[in-house]
Amino acid sequence: MLSTRGQKNARSDAMASYNNKQKEPYHKATNPTGEVNFANAVNYLIKDDIMNFMREQKNLIEPVHLTYNDGPAGSFRLRNAMATHINETFNPTFEVTSEHVTFAPGITALNEMVAKNLADDGDAWLLGMPCYGAFNYDLKMTTGCDIVHVTFGEVDQFGLCAVEKYEAALISARKAGSRVKGLVLCNPHNPLGHCYPVETLKALLKFCDKHKLHLISDEIYALSVFKTTDAVQPAPFTSVLSIDPTDLIDANYVHALYGMSKDFGAPGLRLGCLITRNQELTNATRAIGRFHWPSEMSSAVTIRILEDRTFATELLERGRKMLAESYALATDILNNAGIKYYKGGNAGLFIWMDLSPFLGTPTKEKDGWALEKDLNTRLSKAGVLMSSGAPYHNETPGWFRLVFSREKDLVEEGLRRVIEVVKDMKNTSSGVMRLDLEFEV
Amino acid sequence: MLSTRGQKNARSDAMASYNNKQKEPYHKATNPTGEVNFANAVNYLIKDDIMNFMREQKNLIEPVHLTYNDGPAGSFRLRNAMATHINETFNPTFEVTSEHVTFAPGITALNEMVAKNLADDGDAWLLGMPCYGAFNYDLKMTTGCDIVHVTFGEVDQFGLCAVEKYEAALISARKAGSRVKGLVLCNPHNPLGHCYPVETLKALLKFCDKHKLHLISDEIYALSVFKTTDAVQPAPFTSVLSIDPTDLIDANYVHALYGMSKDFGAPGLRLGCLITRNQELTNATRAIGRFHWPSEMSSAVTIRILEDRTFATELLERGRKMLAESYALATDILNNAGIKYYKGGNAGLFIWMDLSPFLGTPTKEKDGWALEKDLNTRLSKAGVLMSSGAPYHNETPGWFRLVFSREKDLVEEGLRRVIEVVKDMKNTSSGVMRLDLEFEV
Repeated sequence: MLSTRGQKNARSDAMASYNNKQKEPYHKATNPTGEVNFANAVNYLIKDDIMNFMREQKNLIEPVHLTYNDGPAGSFRLRNAMATHINETFNPTFEVTSEHVTFAPGITALNEMVAKNLADDGDAWLLGMPCYGAFNYDLKMTTGCDIVHVTFGEVDQFGLCAVEKYEAALISARKAGSRVKGLVLCNPHNPLGHCYPVETLKALLKFCDKHKLHLISDEIYALSVFKTTDAVQPAPFTSVLSIDPTDLIDANYVHALYGMSKDFGAPGLRLGCLITRNQELTNATRAIGRFHWPSEMSSAVTIRILEDRTFATELLERGRKMLAESYALATDILNNAGIKYYKGGNAGLFIWMDLSPFLGTPTKEKDGWALEKDLNTRLSKAGVLMSSGAPYHNETPGWFRLVFSREKDLVEEGLRRVIEVVKDMKNTSSGVMRLDLEFEV
Repeated sequence: MLSTRGQKNARSDAMASYNNKQKEPYHKATNPTGEVNFANAVNYLIKDDIMNFMREQKNLIEPVHLTYNDGPAGSFRLRNAMATHINETFNPTFEVTSEHVTFAPGITALNEMVAKNLADDGDAWLLGMPCYGAFNYDLKMTTGCDIVHVTFGEVDQFGLCAVEKYEAALISARKAGSRVKGLVLCNPHNPLGHCYPVETLKALLKFCDKHKLHLISDEIYALSVFKTTDAVQPAPFTSVLSIDPTDLIDANYVHALYGMSKDFGAPGLRLGCLITRNQELTNATRAIGRFHWPSEMSSAVTIRILEDRTFATELLERGRKMLAESYALATDILNNAGIKYYKGGNAGLFIWMDLSPFLGTPTKEKDGWALEKDLNTRLSKAGVLMSSGAPYHNETPGWFRLVFSREKDLVEEGLRRVIEVVKDMKNTSSGVMRLDLEFEV
């Protein structure tokens, strides 16, 4: 009854996590057995700040916001407000204007739109491992494109040597007939929380230029870089917009994505934007924007936030401070429990946690990935939701993405449950890690 | 540098009307030479009612609206509120629930999404002439689908005889190799403002069943049906949801579209929804919903409007009353000026106006469609924006869609300019209509 593509969409699990009503969430006083969501990457720590700001606004919605206003790319005022924000915080080498900025309802939409406009059915995108799990939907589901996942093994994927790994993967994919059209980075990295050093970015731009690849840089966590003693001399965030492309690459091949969902704690706004100097890509993306038309209500809120530079700056600073505190809280608990995690991260809302020692022993019937899934089911039954490594294309099984940007009580309770579950696993585990069984949060 | 489809998108004129900043609009006191927009179908007549309602709301935005909430199909609360509204106003033969309702940022998005999920690349859709101009983008631009436009000649396209015309077009298209997958109706009709009588709808459902066609009924103007003495015994609005499909068609082939843009005067919300009993279509549409994720801010506003049944009912009643008044005002002016228009309309926000007598004489070099374009350019230069018949696939040139749901001053000034322009044309015209040259508004 449906088209071939419709049937494929109907079979997809893209909506799986939203099909049922969400369970009542954990609350220390009112719902102590409620679910702890460590899965959705939302910075809940600045929720009250945004709510208070919104409540203070007078006449937030103006009559123009009821109309089609300036069309699907976002109003000139919205695009100007974002351009100003980018100019003040991303250190671009050119003055970003409303002409470089195109809005859509979230970067999720823009991933699809830009992938389609730059790549045809059957073309492919390079992506390092691990990567943001939903790229699998965003870049492939409706585009007909493939993803070439790049393994790094023992090589630091943020170092200069990583370029060789990308190049080897590209050459091998092209030999196998793949038409790779670009490299997609998430910087700061999701799920590793690591920023790409400027020298690595420059080398990657050169690499893209050499092979006529587009570079799409998803910078949605750009301003969520926080202080931690875990990472040794961590790289600060460097936007691709802040690197002079002269002698590196044609600026028409460099595209950044940003939005309100992470740094500003408001994914419900559904506002993301493409920032590019490629006029043709801007035109193409705006042309299909009618199918991805952002809300003028969200625009009204965002204009207020971004035009109030004092509030925006303070909100971002407070966000980083709260992230640093919550990261310290969560990692203290993990360290005390002897649970390892990726220590290079100083950005984003997540800790990439190594639960591989608690998977149990793989068998012929049940490999590590199946055991990872089992562990996730047990965690879920214990009331903790988390993304695991498989959809994030981690190279080895047993890793979990812990979103730590949650209230203190919730972080403590969630981790108590995680530790409770892996404590049970310890007995059957082939792992070698120390687990302090006496630990209590 | 772009993909083949990206280049096609970049060349599209879909964003043309939004590329430049809008000119300062007409205002009797402050900008008497400003532009009069008779093009965008927005019911400006209820603007103040909505604005006042929104200003009265306490704590409109709640913390949950900052989050991903229940995902891309719209929150359960939003879908329930819409289901209740539909149950109260559309007289459905089954109880519409949140499970039948799927939101996206406007029907524009849903046209594309549903067209893709029901039809493959190269498949086609049946559409009567004239039709809503943007179907050309929505159903074709990114879907790879074609449109088979159906001519009616002297036959009443709202009468039972129209079915023969649809059938003839279908058979002829299929003979020519076209894979027609469905019929798209806009009911009430855009641009004619006519509602489909229930008997015609039943006959069309039977026709769809006979040929295994889906029926997509765009009912965005459903509750904007107003009183006028122009239309003789006008049909009331009948939703396809209110027709018992038993003995007519499998309910899985019947789909309605509705939203907040027209009856509720708020296209800036970007909230439209699909209402269908086809679970597979719902699943497929929700699965790609991540790329068309509506705003939680818009959701918050819409929940308040739809849950306040007294306000919603009064707003709709007031909208209809204001439309009746403005229609009477505009048609009085047209009648006095001797300008003809389609008199069967009693719904929607537009008058389908016949300016064909003022086109001038077609020549070998310049046919009627070129003359229509010329006339539209002259109207635009005179400060009146209007859609003309060509993009609406009218059967003959010279027709214009006048959006009359505007403030009294603006309707009068806009029509004064229209009359001024066609008065100049009269001298060179081959038309036979009476034009009262002395008319002043």
